[in-house]
Amino acid sequence: MKRTAFFISDGTGLTAEGLGNALLAQFEKIDFERITVPYIDDSDKARELVTRINKAAETDDEKPLVFDTIVDSDIREIISEANGFMVDIFGTFLQPLEQELKASSSYSVGKSHAINNEGSYERRIHAVNFALDNDDGARTRQYDEADLILVGASRSGKTPTCLYLALQYGIKAANYPITEEDLNDQQLPEALRPHREKIFGLTIEPERLATIRNERRPNSRYSSLKQCMHEIEEIELMYRRERIPYLNTTAYSVEEISTRIMVATGLRRHR
Amino acid sequence: MKRTAFFISDGTGLTAEGLGNALLAQFEKIDFERITVPYIDDSDKARELVTRINKAAETDDEKPLVFDTIVDSDIREIISEANGFMVDIFGTFLQPLEQELKASSSYSVGKSHAINNEGSYERRIHAVNFALDNDDGARTRQYDEADLILVGASRSGKTPTCLYLALQYGIKAANYPITEEDLNDQQLPEALRPHREKIFGLTIEPERLATIRNERRPNSRYSSLKQCMHEIEEIELMYRRERIPYLNTTAYSVEEISTRIMVATGLRRHR
Repeated sequence: MKRTAFFISDGTGLTAEGLGNALLAQFEKIDFERITVPYIDDSDKARELVTRINKAAETDDEKPLVFDTIVDSDIREIISEANGFMVDIFGTFLQPLEQELKASSSYSVGKSHAINNEGSYERRIHAVNFALDNDDGARTRQYDEADLILVGASRSGKTPTCLYLALQYGIKAANYPITEEDLNDQQLPEALRPHREKIFGLTIEPERLATIRNERRPNSRYSSLKQCMHEIEEIELMYRRERIPYLNTTAYSVEEISTRIMVATGLRRHR
Repeated sequence: MKRTAFFISDGTGLTAEGLGNALLAQFEKIDFERITVPYIDDSDKARELVTRINKAAETDDEKPLVFDTIVDSDIREIISEANGFMVDIFGTFLQPLEQELKASSSYSVGKSHAINNEGSYERRIHAVNFALDNDDGARTRQYDEADLILVGASRSGKTPTCLYLALQYGIKAANYPITEEDLNDQQLPEALRPHREKIFGLTIEPERLATIRNERRPNSRYSSLKQCMHEIEEIELMYRRERIPYLNTTAYSVEEISTRIMVATGLRRHR
């Protein structure tokens, strides 16, 4: 059984898509065809969308679910004529919030996403550039400026995590790969020692690490299970000895790794 | 007037935070202190959070707003005792959805974020690596594999956009900087010609570009307004001559640039 779900918005659609997907994930047995339609900000686009929703209703022989965060009332009215099951995300919550806050909300096209457009943009772009400049131990002289220094074995997920932290939270995260030479020294690499309080470690199941490394360099010593087991064992030993907080990333998505690091370090989103 | 808003979840908190922020953005005159508390997945954490909410209520002398996506009923019950204005995101929508879908939803801790944990993870990490390997015209021989090739002047926003498209949508996006030499040739750079249908252009107001470049290389020819005006004029001319679809990024966030590119190109999220 297939069911179509639309996520529609006059902005990016990320709010409607995020909430809609989280709700649909609760219905595991239903196969949803998900369609995101952002920037529905005039009546022509709205009417086109109505046609599209109605077509899906006909094909599926079931009303599509329509999750929306449209705030403009004229556009809402057009959409409401579609043959869909409407989930009015803003309408549902804004009225009780207005009562509680004793304030009226500013209903206007695009306003809903204002939060994304403010000062944080520059900060996040800076953070992305910082992550790129300080990726993979390339530089260590900017560590004073870092909010966080992620350490871990090669291919344990440091780079995507740093980039996600930069894009999502404006966090300046450097990353430093722990190599075999570092492990032979039996102590924290010298470049890291002055920044101990900013260090956070990643670890990963050796089997998973071997799989990931094999994609990059098949059948090498680098990607052998034996080598991965050795590195991970030594790295975890170092984390414990040096009292570095760390996280096993094996079962987690980039979002989960990143939010767990935010919680563990007490870092806050930059605005 | 300050008002505290909590975004709480048994998962990453991204859904509660995303929707909560979008709703709060509608109340421009109120100054919100926003606190995200993810991973509330046992009753001890829940009780600790109740204390925190109650403390905020006392300090503010107003009930904090509590946006939550917690699905476990025991944890929900503990949280509901807090002195907050509860916005039960899942509870509100799941019941009508269950009726419409004639199916019951799987209420269990963490289930709500299942969507993030599936196959898309690998694809997204691959896409991030692809974006990094193919950043700034570093390589052009993998363009066959690309979903998209972003082109534009140096510092017009290509790299953060490629990374966001990779992390959010699993899109493999390369980027290629249009240099002065390319512009002298009066045609599409050779490396791009075989991939014309994957090319998307970025442009930006010259004043804004000059500001951004000045941060990187102050008072250089590269960052002078004259140079920026010249490059942008020539680049936009080339886009029009070569019929390359393009977007002016000046007023947009990374999310907006990315979602607008998704719409314009018809690319779909990879799962």
